This record gives sequence, structure tokens and C-alpha cells, in this order.
Amino acid sequence: MSRWKPNARERLAAAAMELYGERGFDETSVADIAERAGLTERTFFRYFADKREVLFGGGAALEKLVVERLGGNADLAVPLDAVASALASTSLLFEGRRAFAKARQALIAGHPGLQERELIKLASLTAAIAAQLRRRGVKEPAASLVAEAGMAVFKMAFGRWVADAKHRDLAHHIQASLGHLRAAMSAPRRRMG
Amino acid sequence: MSRWKPNARERLAAAAMELYGERGFDETSVADIAERAGLTERTFFRYFADKREVLFGGGAALEKLVVERLGGNADLAVPLDAVASALASTSLLFEGRRAFAKARQALIAGHPGLQERELIKLASLTAAIAAQLRRRGVKEPAASLVAEAGMAVFKMAFGRWVADAKHRDLAHHIQASLGHLRAAMSAPRRRMG
Repeated sequence: MSRWKPNARERLAAAAMELYGERGFDETSVADIAERAGLTERTFFRYFADKREVLFGGGAALEKLVVERLGGNADLAVPLDAVASALASTSLLFEGRRAFAKARQALIAGHPGLQERELIKLASLTAAIAAQLRRRGVKEPAASLVAEAGMAVFKMAFGRWVADAKHRDLAHHIQASLGHLRAAMSAPRRRMG
Repeated sequence: MSRWKPNARERLAAAAMELYGERGFDETSVADIAERAGLTERTFFRYFADKREVLFGGGAALEKLVVERLGGNADLAVPLDAVASALASTSLLFEGRRAFAKARQALIAGHPGLQERELIKLASLTAAIAAQLRRRGVKEPAASLVAEAGMAVFKMAFGRWVADAKHRDLAHHIQASLGHLRAAMSAPRRRMG
């Protein structure tokens, strides 16, 4: 039994991201990560199933929160607004994690295996949103289409949030991207006036 | 030099799909496919780089057609309509190939490695559409959002086309799915009247 280490999870994640950036993901071992964090491999495995989970371990909490927000009393009169609002509620999960998110995104973009993993995870979140919409009475194909459109907005907003020099929160970028999508789906105003 | 074989490509693709269905994708070799088609392995490799390309080889023609349709004189006043219309133009590529598409879809759904490949291919098509929209003057984030929304419509429509007992064409299903997405993004009419 190892002693409790304050912030062990955060130290391990930070050490992993440093090493992935310096040496590459494939070239970094769990032993390297534990050493850099000044912890044991055993401690690593109490927090992460493997070195990939440092990057993808947050997905479950994200999915849980979004699905919860679409349950209960959520107003589904305009399903895409409900999905965007549920996704915007995850803003808090990401507060203070912009640097991690930025490093993670660059790493994934440069590694086909991690990219595939990311696409699978995003597809799974999309399916979970669609399933919850159906449970709440939204019919197909609307449920799946809205889930996909909402995730498109989320991905775009996430990329803009990561790069935002003004440090506006993720919820801001989700509402902005949603507005851009709506505009690109409608006849231009000048033609209607 | 082997002699020219009439319909060699179609015979090889049909033999491959039969075997993938009977034995599974992983358990089928190129030698098996060639034998079932009554052709040589060498002939197989004149048409396909590997056994996966039987499933994914059509992607390049699809992308080329969609990107072409978004070029030149395409009306981009409502970018999502332009994307949906370009995607609907691929309807002809799929005419007479519903049985193949259905078998392909079932096979991919049951095989994680093929699913990953499919997601990568769809992401690449989405990126090509966004790039063409940007070239035609559509700004980000609209270009990427519309490409994603258009592909969501395409995937939904494709699934419905494959399963359509009434044999309506893919273009029909794309327009129908587009209508469903629009409805799920707008305030319900009854509240406005």
C-alpha cells in the first residue's frame, strides 16, 4: 500500500503531457511518467488504466454530464438548443485546463492512432446524446441529426476556446458557433428584406 | 500478363463481400477472394491495393464528385443547401449498389477496426468539403460547421436509403433528412402562430 500523494493524478497527467510532447506518445512508457512525477508505476495505475487514458479519461465525466443535462426538465422545444446548452454546461469541467486541452489537441492531431481513438470517443458521445433525445421523445432522424450537429458545434467551439487569446469560456464559443451554423443554414437576411 | 477478364472488378468485389459475410473480414484472405471469383491474386491486386480497399475504394470518386459540385457555379447563398445538393449528386454513384452498401454497412458496424477506418474516411471527406467551401469564400467557422452538418445529413440519409423498402433514391433521403435537421433547429411553428 503506497501512501496517499497529494494531487497525484494531476502530477501524473502533467508529467505524461510533458513527456508526450518531448519524446512523442509512442516513445513514452508508464515508468517514464511515474519517474517524472516522482511517483510509482503502481500509483499511476490507480488513476489510469494505461498511458492513453491520460488523454481520454475525461470522456466519461463529460458524457455523464451532457446526458444528465438532457434529462429531467430540459426544455426540448428546439432540440438543437437543448443539446448546445447541455454541451455548454461542460464549460466548468474545462475551466483552468486550457493548457492541457491545447497540448492534448496538438498531440492527437499529429498521431493517427490517437486520432482514431478520438473519433471513436466523439462518435460514442454523439450516440449517447441521440439515445437520450430519443428517451425524451425526440423522434428519429431528428435525434441523431441534432446530436451530430450539436457535436459539430462543440468540436468547433472547443478548438476556438483552446486558441482564444481573450480567454472567453467554452459556453461562449458554443453559443457563437451555434449562431454561425444557423446563419449558414438560412437564406441571407438581405434577400428577405 | 493475364488476359482481360470481363467484369473482373465486380466479380472480385462480390466474391469478397460473400466471404466477409460468411467467414468474417479478418478470416478472409486475398487468395480466398480470388479463388471464389475464379480469378488470380494478381488480378485482384490490379483493382485493389488490399482486401480493405474492396470496402473503401469508392471514397475517392465520391469525394471528387462532391468537391467538383461545390466548385464553379454552385450557388452558395445558403451553404448547407449547396453541400446537401452536392452530396445528393452522388446518388447516381450508388444506383444499383444498394445490396452491396447494405452488406458493407453491416460488416463495418460489427468490426471496430473497419469502423475506425470508416470514421477516418468520413472525417477526410468532411475536411475536403470545408476546404472547398473556404476556397469559394465561405468563412470559418461556417465552412467547417456546414461541412459537418451536411455529412450528418448524408450519413443519416445513407442509412435510410440502404433500408428503404420503397427504393427511393439517395437524393430523396438527403432532402428529407435536411428537412428534419432544419425543423429540429427552429422554434416549433405552433408557438409562432
